[in-house]
Amino acid sequence: MKLYDYFRSSAAYRVRIALNLKGLKYDRAFVHLTRGGGEQFSDRYGQINPQNLVPALADGDQVLTQSLAIIEYLEETHPEPPLAPVSPAERARVRGIALAIACDIHPIDNLRVLNYLTKQLGVTDEQRTAWYRHWVETGLKSVEALVAGHPMTGRYCHGDTPSIADICLVPQLFNARRFDCDLSGCPELLRIDGACNEIPAFADAAPPNQPDAE
Amino acid sequence: MKLYDYFRSSAAYRVRIALNLKGLKYDRAFVHLTRGGGEQFSDRYGQINPQNLVPALADGDQVLTQSLAIIEYLEETHPEPPLAPVSPAERARVRGIALAIACDIHPIDNLRVLNYLTKQLGVTDEQRTAWYRHWVETGLKSVEALVAGHPMTGRYCHGDTPSIADICLVPQLFNARRFDCDLSGCPELLRIDGACNEIPAFADAAPPNQPDAE
Repeated sequence: MKLYDYFRSSAAYRVRIALNLKGLKYDRAFVHLTRGGGEQFSDRYGQINPQNLVPALADGDQVLTQSLAIIEYLEETHPEPPLAPVSPAERARVRGIALAIACDIHPIDNLRVLNYLTKQLGVTDEQRTAWYRHWVETGLKSVEALVAGHPMTGRYCHGDTPSIADICLVPQLFNARRFDCDLSGCPELLRIDGACNEIPAFADAAPPNQPDAE
Repeated sequence: MKLYDYFRSSAAYRVRIALNLKGLKYDRAFVHLTRGGGEQFSDRYGQINPQNLVPALADGDQVLTQSLAIIEYLEETHPEPPLAPVSPAERARVRGIALAIACDIHPIDNLRVLNYLTKQLGVTDEQRTAWYRHWVETGLKSVEALVAGHPMTGRYCHGDTPSIADICLVPQLFNARRFDCDLSGCPELLRIDGACNEIPAFADAAPPNQPDAE
C-alpha cells in the first residue's frame, strides 16, 4: 500500500493512525500542500485524486480517497484489531462522533477555505484566526457534549478500545493547539487525547514525527 | 423510529431518501432551522442532539446523529435493499463519493457558515452567493471527475443500484439549483440525478414534498 501523505494534513494523520493501529506497513509519497502553490494541484496528483486533496491510498490497482472511506476499507480488509464496536447502535455512536469532527469542524477550517477568506474576501489575519477558532471551539464543545458523562464513554471516546472516533479526535485537537484554540470547555476530550497519545500508533502518526515534517 | 427533520436540510433529505429506499415507516418531529433564531438551538432539541444540527433519528432509546452514521446504521439493521456494494474496494468508492459531498461541499455552505460570513465578517449578499457557488461548483466538478468515464459508474454513481453516493448527490444538486450554481461542468452528475429522481424514494424525499415545506 502507498499513502499519499502530508505531515500536517489532519485527514492524512487519521489514516496514519489507522494504518499504525492495524499494524500495516505502507510506502509513502509526499504531497506538499503549500510548496509551489500546492503539489496537490499538479496534473500528476490530479490523476490520482481528482479532488486535489490528501490523503489518497493506493492498494494494488485501486486508489482510495477520503480518509473515512479509507479507514472503513482498512477495517473491512484487515478487521483486527477492530476500530469500531460490533453492535449497530454503538457503531453509529462512534461514526457520529467521527463525522461530527470530519464533516462539521475540519472542512470549514481547511487550508483552501482559509485561503479563500484571505484572497477572495480580504479578511484580516485576526478575522481568519477568529474564524478558525470559532469553528474548532464550537465544534469541539458539541463533541464534548456527545462524550462527557455518556455511559459508553470509557478510557477512549467509546469504551476502552481506540476507535474511529478517537482517530478523528486526536488530529483535530493537534490542530486546535496549533492555533491556540480555547480548549477549557473540553476536559473530557483532553483526557481522552492524553490516553490516545500514550499509544505508539497515535504518537508515531503525529505531524512532528513524519519524515516530511518541517 | 422518529426523524427530527427540516424540509430544506440537505442532511435530513439524505436520511429521508435512505428510509424510503429501505421501505421503513417513521414518525417525524420538525425542527425549524430559521424560525425564532433556529429551533435547533432550543434546550429541548439540544438534549436530543448536542450538535444542534438536524437530522437526528430516534430508534427506541437510542438517538443517532450525523446523516451518514444514521444511514450506515439503517444499512446494518435493515440490509435490504442494500445501499452499498459488497466488495470493500467498491464500498470505498461509494463512501468516497458520499464523503466528497458530505465533508467537502455541504458543511462549508451550511446555513451557520453563511450566517457567520454575513454577521461576523460583514460580507455582501453577492460575496455570500459567490462563496456558496464556489464551493458547490468546485466540489461537484471534482465529484464529476470521480464518476464520469469510470468503469464502475452505471445508471447511478456506482453500478445500476442506487447507493449512499447517490443519496448524497441528489440533495446537493437540489441545493445547487436553488442557488443557481453553474452545473454545466457536471453532465454525468445531472444524468445520474435524473435517473435517481425517477425513483419514488428519491422524489418523495425532496424538500417541496415534505409536510413542513414552505
